[in-house]
Amino acid sequence: MTKKILVLPGDGIGPEIVGQATRVLDALIADHGLDMAYESALVGGSSFDEHGVPLTDEVLEQARQADSVLLGAVGGPKWEQYEIAVRPEKALLKLRSELKLFGNLRPAILYPQLASASSLKPELVSGLDVLIVRELTGGIYFGQPRGIRTNNNGEREGFNTYIYSESEIERIAHVAFRAAMLRGKRLCSVDKANVLEVTELWREVMTRVGKEYPDVELTHMYVDNAAMQLVRAPKQFDVMVTGNMFGDILSDCAAMLTGSIGMLPSASLDANGKGMYEPIHGSAPDIAGQNKANPLATILSVSMMLRHSFGEEALADKIENAVSTVLDQGYRTGDIYTDGMKLVSTSEMGDAVLAAL
Amino acid sequence: MTKKILVLPGDGIGPEIVGQATRVLDALIADHGLDMAYESALVGGSSFDEHGVPLTDEVLEQARQADSVLLGAVGGPKWEQYEIAVRPEKALLKLRSELKLFGNLRPAILYPQLASASSLKPELVSGLDVLIVRELTGGIYFGQPRGIRTNNNGEREGFNTYIYSESEIERIAHVAFRAAMLRGKRLCSVDKANVLEVTELWREVMTRVGKEYPDVELTHMYVDNAAMQLVRAPKQFDVMVTGNMFGDILSDCAAMLTGSIGMLPSASLDANGKGMYEPIHGSAPDIAGQNKANPLATILSVSMMLRHSFGEEALADKIENAVSTVLDQGYRTGDIYTDGMKLVSTSEMGDAVLAAL
Ligand SMILES: CC(C)[C@H](C(=O)O)[C@@H](O)C(=O)O
Ligand SMILES: CC(C)[C@H](C(=O)O)[C@@H](O)C(=O)O
Repeated sequence: MTKKILVLPGDGIGPEIVGQATRVLDALIADHGLDMAYESALVGGSSFDEHGVPLTDEVLEQARQADSVLLGAVGGPKWEQYEIAVRPEKALLKLRSELKLFGNLRPAILYPQLASASSLKPELVSGLDVLIVRELTGGIYFGQPRGIRTNNNGEREGFNTYIYSESEIERIAHVAFRAAMLRGKRLCSVDKANVLEVTELWREVMTRVGKEYPDVELTHMYVDNAAMQLVRAPKQFDVMVTGNMFGDILSDCAAMLTGSIGMLPSASLDANGKGMYEPIHGSAPDIAGQNKANPLATILSVSMMLRHSFGEEALADKIENAVSTVLDQGYRTGDIYTDGMKLVSTSEMGDAVLAAL
Repeated sequence: MTKKILVLPGDGIGPEIVGQATRVLDALIADHGLDMAYESALVGGSSFDEHGVPLTDEVLEQARQADSVLLGAVGGPKWEQYEIAVRPEKALLKLRSELKLFGNLRPAILYPQLASASSLKPELVSGLDVLIVRELTGGIYFGQPRGIRTNNNGEREGFNTYIYSESEIERIAHVAFRAAMLRGKRLCSVDKANVLEVTELWREVMTRVGKEYPDVELTHMYVDNAAMQLVRAPKQFDVMVTGNMFGDILSDCAAMLTGSIGMLPSASLDANGKGMYEPIHGSAPDIAGQNKANPLATILSVSMMLRHSFGEEALADKIENAVSTVLDQGYRTGDIYTDGMKLVSTSEMGDAVLAAL
């Protein structure tokens, strides 16, 4: 049966970068006779402008029916005036939650060609290959109660709830341990168990699940130290696993180790291999519509889709190799540009990847 | 009247680094006829081992009576088996909360002599001077309800509450805006207002208080982006202000920009200038008792004490100049050692600072 992909370009640079990613997908479908088809829909601010909500029921239903989703980015200052419940970001959170995409994989790999674009000194990052596993459908992002209320002193107060149940921790633990088994067999669980009870439970459950994976060396680290260690000596890590909020912060903190957040794809998976794939960067409204954005994170997200949702390992490798080739050839968008390289636009980078496929 | 200082060495390397800091204080008291006296007490794991609690009522009362507190560090694996309520860290949290030390100042300054010890490329950090203002007595660290309970499905779940009232946000806003007025007049407030209602209120109140400081340029940044920008281009920041949890993570993330967390002091102030002063690093149990730790963060914390609690600006400068001198002379503890420098012990570093005073 034809595999269905839902493409959600979103806001800001979303349509530009997704445009290049679907060109790559088109080429693979044509060249390899893949039985895949995709359709596009509005999401985020562009959906809000058209329909008054960031995610319509129809699009959510399309996403449910699809075998996987490719998303660009959502949000921008234009919609910051609205309440959280109808902001573009809400579409993303609702998709993650409704599709039960609890397992978020965020690889941070330094392409050797980009060593000089990294913020860190070369000796600290050469050969860097860390996988951050982020729990994506729980924690403080979704915890109830939440809101802004008037307290007993007649003052307003804002509140959110950071909450995890044992089963939520268990299932992300298994994702992380299995990922570690396929890699360097070292897993670092990040928490704040010296202060927050919710992460005390997190640490306890991680330790218990770890007994089922005796080959994996499990360590624990406080989140403040983890942020520091990512900057001090990131190569000490193989796989890291953490909750929704800490994962958000740490994966962005790790981004600059690889030269640019514009290089980093992600996969958000449910229990059955269905996934949503998106670059970890945002909608970059400041450069939207200028054909300047780096499409490689989105193109690499297509590679993750082929690997994780469709079992097309060889084609996934093919995309990654093409990305490596264009970097060898010196093509650089502005975010990864360094002296002596060839500065190209979003679409020229897409051209180069297509040529290298 | 004699100014009273309570000295709380704490655990791990705490006693060693505080020992060097009090030598510096002794020298200043003697040389300048300062009317100051200090006494020491147990705190953290060392108090737990002796009294069964990490902070006794007597020591808390001593801290209340004192004009300021100098603290080393608390915690270690030895006490990780105990519940959060009696862990060494609890002493720190209780002191901060009971003494109402809501305004935490964490300067991240790169001494030019340590440029080569920074993780970041020199051009990204040379001249770095950022001040992180962290709210220290509210947010998720202290929010109620909290704990581990059995939910309706019969499963255990851990939960904490991230909460801020308007007045809590207002008072830390004033601390941050006033600090910005004395520096580069730029303040970046860090939140996650696209997801968390509590930080939506944070952003609203920051913006409102900002109207009272028309000379300060206020910007807002999401915490994930802030973590990335600290690694990408930290010199864009003058003063940053954020809540308790984000401040914990971001200040550690910033630490390696300055070469070592072993260089970073902090001040935690109440509304009247009373303060607790401590290095931002932890108790480093792995090197405790080996005369290896870097005492400079604690010595610089004494400098912050003289400046913020006692108005002794000239003596505060004197300590900072002495630290700069020992770095010029090439003295380095292990954490900041680079080729060609003189590797020294904790106490030798103390000797060098005393000689340079
Ligand atoms: C846009 C935002 C809601 C989102 C998040 O916080 O999860 C983004 O930062 C990410 O990391 O995917
Ligand atoms: C020891 C710990 C409780 C503390 C904190 O989280 O505040 C420390 O990390 C700090 O930053 O002072």
